[in-house]
Amino acid sequence: METHVEGETVRVGHTGREQFYDARGYGHPVDGELSLSRVETAHLLYRGDIDSVDGMGFREFLATEDGLASRFLVYKDLRDRGFYLTPAREAWVDDPDGIDFVVYPRGDGPWDDTVAYRVRVVAERDPVPAADLGDVVLAVVDEESELTYLETSRPEVSGTAAEPPEHGTDAVLLDDRAVVWEPPERLHAAAFYGQPLDDDRTAVQLSLVEGAYLAAQGVLSFPGGRESVLELGRDAEGDRFDRRLAVYTALRTSGVVPKTGFKFGAEFRTYADISSVEELGHSERLVRVLPTDHTFAPRDLSLDIRLAHGVRKEMVFAFTDGIGHEPDASADVEWLSVQRLTP
Amino acid sequence: METHVEGETVRVGHTGREQFYDARGYGHPVDGELSLSRVETAHLLYRGDIDSVDGMGFREFLATEDGLASRFLVYKDLRDRGFYLTPAREAWVDDPDGIDFVVYPRGDGPWDDTVAYRVRVVAERDPVPAADLGDVVLAVVDEESELTYLETSRPEVSGTAAEPPEHGTDAVLLDDRAVVWEPPERLHAAAFYGQPLDDDRTAVQLSLVEGAYLAAQGVLSFPGGRESVLELGRDAEGDRFDRRLAVYTALRTSGVVPKTGFKFGAEFRTYADISSVEELGHSERLVRVLPTDHTFAPRDLSLDIRLAHGVRKEMVFAFTDGIGHEPDASADVEWLSVQRLTP
Repeated sequence: METHVEGETVRVGHTGREQFYDARGYGHPVDGELSLSRVETAHLLYRGDIDSVDGMGFREFLATEDGLASRFLVYKDLRDRGFYLTPAREAWVDDPDGIDFVVYPRGDGPWDDTVAYRVRVVAERDPVPAADLGDVVLAVVDEESELTYLETSRPEVSGTAAEPPEHGTDAVLLDDRAVVWEPPERLHAAAFYGQPLDDDRTAVQLSLVEGAYLAAQGVLSFPGGRESVLELGRDAEGDRFDRRLAVYTALRTSGVVPKTGFKFGAEFRTYADISSVEELGHSERLVRVLPTDHTFAPRDLSLDIRLAHGVRKEMVFAFTDGIGHEPDASADVEWLSVQRLTP
Repeated sequence: METHVEGETVRVGHTGREQFYDARGYGHPVDGELSLSRVETAHLLYRGDIDSVDGMGFREFLATEDGLASRFLVYKDLRDRGFYLTPAREAWVDDPDGIDFVVYPRGDGPWDDTVAYRVRVVAERDPVPAADLGDVVLAVVDEESELTYLETSRPEVSGTAAEPPEHGTDAVLLDDRAVVWEPPERLHAAAFYGQPLDDDRTAVQLSLVEGAYLAAQGVLSFPGGRESVLELGRDAEGDRFDRRLAVYTALRTSGVVPKTGFKFGAEFRTYADISSVEELGHSERLVRVLPTDHTFAPRDLSLDIRLAHGVRKEMVFAFTDGIGHEPDASADVEWLSVQRLTP
């Protein structure tokens, strides 16, 4: 079969269209002929369906473009899994920006108006701006050419947690925590703020984030006011404290209870439905707080997602610049869920 | 009972010595009297064994020193778990540097010459220099005052992996990987280098670290020589590539097989005993590669250790400056194992 490279495209004639597009979903038909992308061409060369392109076999052809080998591995893997897919190019697919492939549901192909996944191929070392995620599947090619698929989406954040307890309880700062020596019972037992100093004592210890939130709500009064809590938090953590407080506030405002995620290496673990501490279930999500302009390293993403998966929680990233951590400004947080996917 | 503060020490008289030291292992006896540290005093106040010190009750006393509240929580927790422990001070314990407490085996006390744990208390936000670890237990107090114990030690790194295969096989670079189109069978099957491009193909893909190591060993020949592999690796990763290569080399030299740890967010997972790929067992360790002057954030440590625990692997940190990545310089790597501990 006659094939030759024209810029980004490999052209094959009428026979190719029947054999490759009509029968197996390769390429994009133009005027009765067929245009193939390089990655599709590499796959046809690999399979032996095409012998050579302009004199090049599979090995030589794979080296003709930067990144082609990684894209080939993902293309081949998805084909091996029984999918048809189309390289994302203007006029070939809708909305090709930011992705490499449109993958059709199994059994469907480019002639159907259906989409299973929008896939972006990244190498293990490629930085991935958070702003690019939310509606794509990342196909990460690691340094040993193994593949990991990560599905990104925008989660709903809402729960049914109780309102904070009555106002005006005295609290103090002690090192880097807040302590309420004589707390109202609901503070911990119903609303799950802080934790008791001991099983048989009434005193409740709270994190500075909990303390700052409850001070803003008027629930706790500190000798130095709410500012003294913010000051201590910022001394220890800088802007990160404001970001965490913004996310904490957004979660509580949505009826979700955040508790420390330290044991999981995250900022928070969250409970959407709590009626009392005695009936505390399993926390559903881990939340990592990041600045809005954050760029992920795929390895860090992999670490978070693997851990969350292992403890049966959903990994959620919360992006905020920390401005507007007052309770009425919770809309300044954006949420991103990332989960492993087996296509 | 008469008690009063003298600098860092709280003094109680002869009765106190019998009641607190002889019977329950508090403090350090001096001339028939007893010296108590602040954290011990806080615990005795908390229990009601002492009513007040210079007019202060438990709440007031706990605020008299920075960090006392965190140390108190750890001291109390270890006491609750049935241990006697002594604050680390010159003349009170051997080698008090870098730790807060010496914990005795259950049933033993300060009058015995035994040690169960040497404990260092850190708050969640305290940076922990890697150089301080290796023979201590970290007691991390998180922002909600929950405790996590992390045991640090120096692991043995050795295995029985096969020698590299015969010399002089041709390899090429393709994007950010190496490919051996016609590999000797032992390359992957016996020595577990790289991975096959496909189940029914002979071609083997290798990471750049594997490629650089095998080029140094004379096993692989690249058109641009070993330097071309190093150059590509350094372009992508900078110094990190040299550090990873140094650790890879040290592991292989010790008979251990490193493979990518990407799915676990680590640099490598390792196999100590491999006779063939068919009988590949479970990898035993995850290895994270860090510069020698690295300082840990406790939360990052917690993330790594929690993940490793969840997948039943040991978390090992490898410290190197990346100088001396030639195979004969493997001694430049220091190893640190960190595991969760329930005292």
